[in-house]
Amino acid sequence: MERKTRRNLRERFALKNSIVKEALAEFLGTFVLILFGCGSVAQTVLSRGAVGEMLTIHIGFTLGVTMAVYVAGGVSGAHVNPAVSLAMLVLGKLKLVKFPVYVLAQFLGAFAGAAAVYGLYYDAFMDYTNGILIVTGPNATAHIFASYPGRHLSILNGFIDQVIGTGALVLCILAIVDGKNNGAPKGMEPLVIGLIIMAIGVSMGLNCGYPINPARDLGPRLFTAVAGWGRDVFSAGRNWWWIPVSGPLVGGVVGAVLYLLFIELHHAEPQKHLEEENSVKEKKCRKITVDGGLKCKTFEELSRSFDFRSLNMK
Amino acid sequence: MERKTRRNLRERFALKNSIVKEALAEFLGTFVLILFGCGSVAQTVLSRGAVGEMLTIHIGFTLGVTMAVYVAGGVSGAHVNPAVSLAMLVLGKLKLVKFPVYVLAQFLGAFAGAAAVYGLYYDAFMDYTNGILIVTGPNATAHIFASYPGRHLSILNGFIDQVIGTGALVLCILAIVDGKNNGAPKGMEPLVIGLIIMAIGVSMGLNCGYPINPARDLGPRLFTAVAGWGRDVFSAGRNWWWIPVSGPLVGGVVGAVLYLLFIELHHAEPQKHLEEENSVKEKKCRKITVDGGLKCKTFEELSRSFDFRSLNMK
Amino acid sequence: MERKTRRNLRERFALKNSIVKEALAEFLGTFVLILFGCGSVAQTVLSRGAVGEMLTIHIGFTLGVTMAVYVAGGVSGAHVNPAVSLAMLVLGKLKLVKFPVYVLAQFLGAFAGAAAVYGLYYDAFMDYTNGILIVTGPNATAHIFASYPGRHLSILNGFIDQVIGTGALVLCILAIVDGKNNGAPKGMEPLVIGLIIMAIGVSMGLNCGYPINPARDLGPRLFTAVAGWGRDVFSAGRNWWWIPVSGPLVGGVVGAVLYLLFIELHHAEPQKHLEEENSVKEKKCRKITVDGGLKCKTFEELSRSFDFRSLNMK
Amino acid sequence: MERKTRRNLRERFALKNSIVKEALAEFLGTFVLILFGCGSVAQTVLSRGAVGEMLTIHIGFTLGVTMAVYVAGGVSGAHVNPAVSLAMLVLGKLKLVKFPVYVLAQFLGAFAGAAAVYGLYYDAFMDYTNGILIVTGPNATAHIFASYPGRHLSILNGFIDQVIGTGALVLCILAIVDGKNNGAPKGMEPLVIGLIIMAIGVSMGLNCGYPINPARDLGPRLFTAVAGWGRDVFSAGRNWWWIPVSGPLVGGVVGAVLYLLFIELHHAEPQKHLEEENSVKEKKCRKITVDGGLKCKTFEELSRSFDFRSLNMK
Repeated sequence: MERKTRRNLRERFALKNSIVKEALAEFLGTFVLILFGCGSVAQTVLSRGAVGEMLTIHIGFTLGVTMAVYVAGGVSGAHVNPAVSLAMLVLGKLKLVKFPVYVLAQFLGAFAGAAAVYGLYYDAFMDYTNGILIVTGPNATAHIFASYPGRHLSILNGFIDQVIGTGALVLCILAIVDGKNNGAPKGMEPLVIGLIIMAIGVSMGLNCGYPINPARDLGPRLFTAVAGWGRDVFSAGRNWWWIPVSGPLVGGVVGAVLYLLFIELHHAEPQKHLEEENSVKEKKCRKITVDGGLKCKTFEELSRSFDFRSLNMK
Repeated sequence: MERKTRRNLRERFALKNSIVKEALAEFLGTFVLILFGCGSVAQTVLSRGAVGEMLTIHIGFTLGVTMAVYVAGGVSGAHVNPAVSLAMLVLGKLKLVKFPVYVLAQFLGAFAGAAAVYGLYYDAFMDYTNGILIVTGPNATAHIFASYPGRHLSILNGFIDQVIGTGALVLCILAIVDGKNNGAPKGMEPLVIGLIIMAIGVSMGLNCGYPINPARDLGPRLFTAVAGWGRDVFSAGRNWWWIPVSGPLVGGVVGAVLYLLFIELHHAEPQKHLEEENSVKEKKCRKITVDGGLKCKTFEELSRSFDFRSLNMK
Repeated sequence: MERKTRRNLRERFALKNSIVKEALAEFLGTFVLILFGCGSVAQTVLSRGAVGEMLTIHIGFTLGVTMAVYVAGGVSGAHVNPAVSLAMLVLGKLKLVKFPVYVLAQFLGAFAGAAAVYGLYYDAFMDYTNGILIVTGPNATAHIFASYPGRHLSILNGFIDQVIGTGALVLCILAIVDGKNNGAPKGMEPLVIGLIIMAIGVSMGLNCGYPINPARDLGPRLFTAVAGWGRDVFSAGRNWWWIPVSGPLVGGVVGAVLYLLFIELHHAEPQKHLEEENSVKEKKCRKITVDGGLKCKTFEELSRSFDFRSLNMK
Repeated sequence: MERKTRRNLRERFALKNSIVKEALAEFLGTFVLILFGCGSVAQTVLSRGAVGEMLTIHIGFTLGVTMAVYVAGGVSGAHVNPAVSLAMLVLGKLKLVKFPVYVLAQFLGAFAGAAAVYGLYYDAFMDYTNGILIVTGPNATAHIFASYPGRHLSILNGFIDQVIGTGALVLCILAIVDGKNNGAPKGMEPLVIGLIIMAIGVSMGLNCGYPINPARDLGPRLFTAVAGWGRDVFSAGRNWWWIPVSGPLVGGVVGAVLYLLFIELHHAEPQKHLEEENSVKEKKCRKITVDGGLKCKTFEELSRSFDFRSLNMK
């Protein structure tokens, strides 16, 4: 399209309000995560394992997170997970006013992603289920969208599972984006953050399939509730549904605190010097950008600027 | 060979015309994609699963795209897919006059790639089929080259499948090469773009095997039509052949528009400043290069210069 | 949390003593390695292969090492393996006084990681074993935590296996972090170092499951001894336990010496020039940092600074 | 070890002669390739598929190449394959006098690597074969070390297979290290070059297992001939042994010529300017290095300097 058209589009529709931009990004990122993630479960279940297996499901969620972070990373920090948003809030890296907006966008994105998977495989669902959408038993399909506990699992162990899993997730994310540690290079974080999901999938998937994300679990579960699977999606597994909501919120904070206490707190921080440096940087940058924000193209920033919005700037 | 020989070669054969160069690159890139992609299906089918499985087929197409982008990326942008070219055209990132040339080169490359796979495995084809090349049934081999729908799939759901799959492909490509988002570093885009294919393969492969590329599907299908499989390759699956041609074209545009509306449109764009910067850059660069184009070695360009030919320069 | 709170935390708890910081990092890194690594074995064994296989175990240890290096790399160099620490000591890249501290932290981290895996899968362990934790036989679970030799394996061949495996590990690590060779870029070393584990896992896993790390093997073995598996964990396999402790220590040194003799020794080293450069660097840096250490932001360091603490600085 | 000791070592043993250094690097690189590659076949065959499968074998050779390139890349360019060396010779990127030295070192490295795999799994070989080392039949083990053709394969198709496979390998390598195309970033080439092997393994492995490297195939075959498998290793498959020697040599040159004609020849080359730039660079660098070679630390070189010794400098 012509440059002019594009400028017109921009003038009419471009959002000045950063919180709305970020909400759109969180929505689209979580949508992509669920599209690839739950899509890979659907492919495996609906083909009765013929064109999918545990490993391809792990790959689906791994690359779902990777692509989600590419889609939303530069705009909202790509939390795509309320547990990550809560951890960032506790660490002072997300403003309180943004927290409910992020979480709502994540839930809506996950709900929409589940709907897209259902549309993608509508014929396959009808073929597999003869139109009877059920939650338990050999022809169950509800676990395509949300987690259900293994038979061996108690509620307590399930909660611990979600705390450990989400703790590991947030701890590793913080390490990967920590510029004072051995952080991933700019633009490769999405891949490496995705690989945390793979690590968790192969090691912590046996109990209940590593939801470790309240939006990823509850959003699609709500979709199944309204799309024909009914209330069983909440009552199954001794009302399991609230464990993958509450466990990750606790686990994310635990992981963040552990990383802070074991690693981040002890980084040398030449506070005074940094402040000087920042004021210099600010001066340089005011000249360069016109949008009110600070965007400098020093090498250091280029290589370390991915920071979940405000990791180093708070 | 001697430097002199090489200079002679260059003087005689080097193409001054950029559109022919780009056509050669699109041809070779699509050839490589099909060689690795359809080769991996051939290996799996002809060994009856003994030295191949769904996952190795996903790897074949994933790395086929990755290698295609390394081969053609710096010359033509490595669309290797008419649906990507059309999306770029609609976004104003590919000139109209180049579009038919790109598409033709892609189809020819895919046709040649299919022929190479047939040559590579000629003995295996004869051994497997006893020389009878058929499209359906347990000894069918046509699906090595082109997609055929699953039994459960309606034409409508097949079309939706191709729109969603190609939409996801283009949306993720645009995110990965978007320098104002969390884009992949220069030289790593081929790997990350390849991983989109893996994500689609594990999550959207059940309906018809994720063609999501008119050249990748129709080119090899034409090869099978002339190489001995006959007209059935078009009539099978209720004339399925036109779905993986039309669906991706629609899907690519849908994905591009979604990325534009949700993300790209809202990037801060200090228009005036950028224009100034460009004019400065232009001055510097005129000094440096002699081929009429602009090639600057500033760090920013080095880290972000992969742009599907003109992503930031239109 | 508020900047003020954070500064308070820092003032109260931040460790000035670098050896304690490094011990914390080695502890947490080894903990993460075991959590993902032994977790992936537990998932495979306790599901009787339903949600795990050899490949997912390889992925577990591969990404366990990758995440461990992200967690600890920038602080302690992320040896997370006494055999690596010993090799670094012999190469003069780790101070003697730090060696026992590193090794102790690694053992404690591995012990704690094993405990976390046991907690994560407590219900699954009880379900699988009916509470009877045994070392050998079809319902054995001790090999989730530590290595046991295959039936075909003699003690001598087992020792050679550990020497070759750990030798390959250390040789490849040294190549990957060697800035004068074709080293991995800053921030990507954790991924590439993890891939050494994958290479070893697919090629050297048949004899006894590639422990190649005294802490990874003996730490969790000690956990099983106290957690209910009893003394059999030491006596099984003709007192196998000491082979994966002694073999790696020898192998790591062998690998380091081989890399030194074949590659590192022959790098051109303009000794005098480098010393000059260093003194210049030192001057610049003294101005920049306040913590006594030297941290320069030249590009070269940024791209090559990961060096197991002192690879180029000794 | 003390700095002094190290300096002593260097004074006594460091090689001034670059061709000997490069031979050592090629030897060690090819050794590592075979150790991981043939090791992964051994693990799969000797466990009768219990701890290995086609995919882990592909991973073994993929990461074998990756680690080989990390080990030797910065010294010799890490050809680790006579077909690659011949292609470089034809392209004028390897001196004629070095060619036989490289090839000899590659063969010796491959032979030594095969011996190491035999040592690693000596007990497992004895257990599997009862000491009878045979080339064909259900208990054959010779194919752990060298390629043998599938039953369906004619000599002609086998030769074509090796030409196509090695052609694809060299074509992709040239694209990946081509700084004027979309080349891989410095330090990531080993990983991406390894992935070519994966692409070939999943798509071209059915005929004879993708040797595509005379040293990788003939070196270990010679080992089996002397280690107890006897002359059958040469006579089997209608004297198959010379196909994976001659085919790759032809294929490598074909791939190089194709890349030259389709892509490299048409890159804009502002000859004059580059020469000026080089002379400036030379001046700067003479100051910096003392070993007669040119090693500059400009950013451009850092990001693009991996060049199979002389890709851009001839």
